[in-house]
Amino acid sequence: MRLPIGFRAGATQAGIKPSGRPDLALLVSGMPCAWAFVGTLNRAAAPCVLRGRELLASGQPLQAVVVNAGNANCATGEAGFWADRRMAELAAERLQLAPESVLTGSTGVIGQPLPLEKVAAGLPRIQLGPEANPFVEAIMTTDLVPKLAEATLSSGARVVGVCKGSGMIAPNMATMLAYIVSDAAVPQEELRRGWKGVVDRSFNQVTVDTDTSTNDMAVLMANGAAGPVDLEEFWEAVERVAVELARKLARDGEGATKLLTVRVTGAINDAEARKAALAVAASPLWKSALYGNDPNWGRIMMALGKAGVAFQVDRVRIALQGILLYDGRVLEFDRAQASQAMRAEEVLVEADLGLGEGQGMAWGCDLTEEYVRINALYTT
Amino acid sequence: MRLPIGFRAGATQAGIKPSGRPDLALLVSGMPCAWAFVGTLNRAAAPCVLRGRELLASGQPLQAVVVNAGNANCATGEAGFWADRRMAELAAERLQLAPESVLTGSTGVIGQPLPLEKVAAGLPRIQLGPEANPFVEAIMTTDLVPKLAEATLSSGARVVGVCKGSGMIAPNMATMLAYIVSDAAVPQEELRRGWKGVVDRSFNQVTVDTDTSTNDMAVLMANGAAGPVDLEEFWEAVERVAVELARKLARDGEGATKLLTVRVTGAINDAEARKAALAVAASPLWKSALYGNDPNWGRIMMALGKAGVAFQVDRVRIALQGILLYDGRVLEFDRAQASQAMRAEEVLVEADLGLGEGQGMAWGCDLTEEYVRINALYTT
Repeated sequence: MRLPIGFRAGATQAGIKPSGRPDLALLVSGMPCAWAFVGTLNRAAAPCVLRGRELLASGQPLQAVVVNAGNANCATGEAGFWADRRMAELAAERLQLAPESVLTGSTGVIGQPLPLEKVAAGLPRIQLGPEANPFVEAIMTTDLVPKLAEATLSSGARVVGVCKGSGMIAPNMATMLAYIVSDAAVPQEELRRGWKGVVDRSFNQVTVDTDTSTNDMAVLMANGAAGPVDLEEFWEAVERVAVELARKLARDGEGATKLLTVRVTGAINDAEARKAALAVAASPLWKSALYGNDPNWGRIMMALGKAGVAFQVDRVRIALQGILLYDGRVLEFDRAQASQAMRAEEVLVEADLGLGEGQGMAWGCDLTEEYVRINALYTT
Repeated sequence: MRLPIGFRAGATQAGIKPSGRPDLALLVSGMPCAWAFVGTLNRAAAPCVLRGRELLASGQPLQAVVVNAGNANCATGEAGFWADRRMAELAAERLQLAPESVLTGSTGVIGQPLPLEKVAAGLPRIQLGPEANPFVEAIMTTDLVPKLAEATLSSGARVVGVCKGSGMIAPNMATMLAYIVSDAAVPQEELRRGWKGVVDRSFNQVTVDTDTSTNDMAVLMANGAAGPVDLEEFWEAVERVAVELARKLARDGEGATKLLTVRVTGAINDAEARKAALAVAASPLWKSALYGNDPNWGRIMMALGKAGVAFQVDRVRIALQGILLYDGRVLEFDRAQASQAMRAEEVLVEADLGLGEGQGMAWGCDLTEEYVRINALYTT
């Protein structure tokens, strides 16, 4: 996928991943970018996330991103903070930029020193080009497929997004990293005002196993090369790209055989609708039933009930693949037919709480024996 | 296990469980009991839980408990509330008590009408005796073993507890039910003052899959038949029984091959320590590593970091089966030896947050392929 005007990317095999696959990547804009950033809430946040927050607070524009896979550089003490700063400096030297305009990212195993000499040796070998694919392929860990999405605005400006995750490979703990770049001209205050909401409605509504990585970040950059745009159209495009990436993350969840989409309506507000949708998408019992094609709506009800949102059991309506299963009371339905409808690449759960106008979506996947095997058996 | 003085119990096969196993049970005191009650926070709480809260609010003593397994009588509409009241009335008739002195409990599949005629036909057949076992065997669903625990005070007064759960069987959603009875004389205000804290340190610290049942309840009854007791000793005995039951619940978690005990110290208070311990016990990634005997302490760190408690990564110490793995910095350790130490019926994780005096425990189990199979494949 071609990057927006002014952006280039590239990657190399630095030897950080034991597999020898590409593991060090650069994403660069020819001119300074307005940018916005959301980092993990995990209190064991890695140096790259903490540094990203500092850069954000400085108010300076951003011009490049350097990311390594195979090592999370997390829980590595003072040396880890130094290594993270050094990685930014090395990338800045390679690109002839100031270190403060380079954002770092790391993903992989926790608690092992980052092999800086491999980063230093790899950076000069990176060839930059107009395609996003080498970048996204190098930041993959247990991802089965690279995840990209794009949108074009009526002015011709483009929005291109890439992400990796939420796969995990023991003993590695991989992470969600998302980078969305655009050649639209959007002021930094506007980018920062809107980004958190987009993340809340896309990446924050994805769940594979409820575990929060220490290295997650979602970054939005706009370099203005394609000129000014209609802001409403811009945000629609960004959200479309973010949601498409979020769905791809969920579908590529470890061991997943299908994508789960949950749409909640009738909540007292949008935030409660998203919370309820996420509770269904995260429930191990419902995820197991989804895997087994079992239209066991009692587990959807249980998950809605434990979500901590305003809720009345006799106001709820639950539909699965368009088949109404509960309507404030127990309904007769054809279990075999409902089970058959669940044998699909994508399964839709719709729940109307019957209390207000709030609505929200969440994305997840089924819980399979393969998830357990990936995270338990193929390790030591 | 013999019940305390004045208590009798019994059960019968009423035909509610498809398996034909015992499924209707009574627990009765010869005299009114002081009692305390904690019910599920799931907002789809079943009629039996809501009725229990009403009885509690009335301030009246309790004298009997009637429980059915095989049907949760949840999300069954107005008819469900009527069926629950009727079950209490039928039990009260059988025992010649007032319905307001009989607590109901139901566990099993959600969203199917309770077969009241089977309850009505079964109740007269129940023979009451001094043993707790028939009662606990009748309230089991996917439990592999009956769970009982007891303690004796220096005065000779006894505390006997039984519980079921946290197994689930598709399409059933089973629940955690716990009943602890004593012949100690303890005023009702005192029972209610202390019970919530005991539940918070025992049953609320057990996690099998993070899903909260709609029918959970934990009940404490004291009939005074053995006379007054030292209250401190009484609460110690009750907590010992509750913790033993909690550990048995965790060990009998669906598909579990081992019991996980997490002890957190050095938190800023006990509540934060319990929260952090529970986050580790509930993490699917750590539970998978536990199954695979993988001493992947990065996942313990990740779970502590996401728990939402005061936390500094360089103050943390993590030990697994007594082997120190992290001490504010990455340590060298023998992975093969640590993995070997995890091949045990019970695995202990100790984490010291290094910030204060708070401490707490949580209990869980490993996540296995069998958990997924039980909840996905053996269903429709």
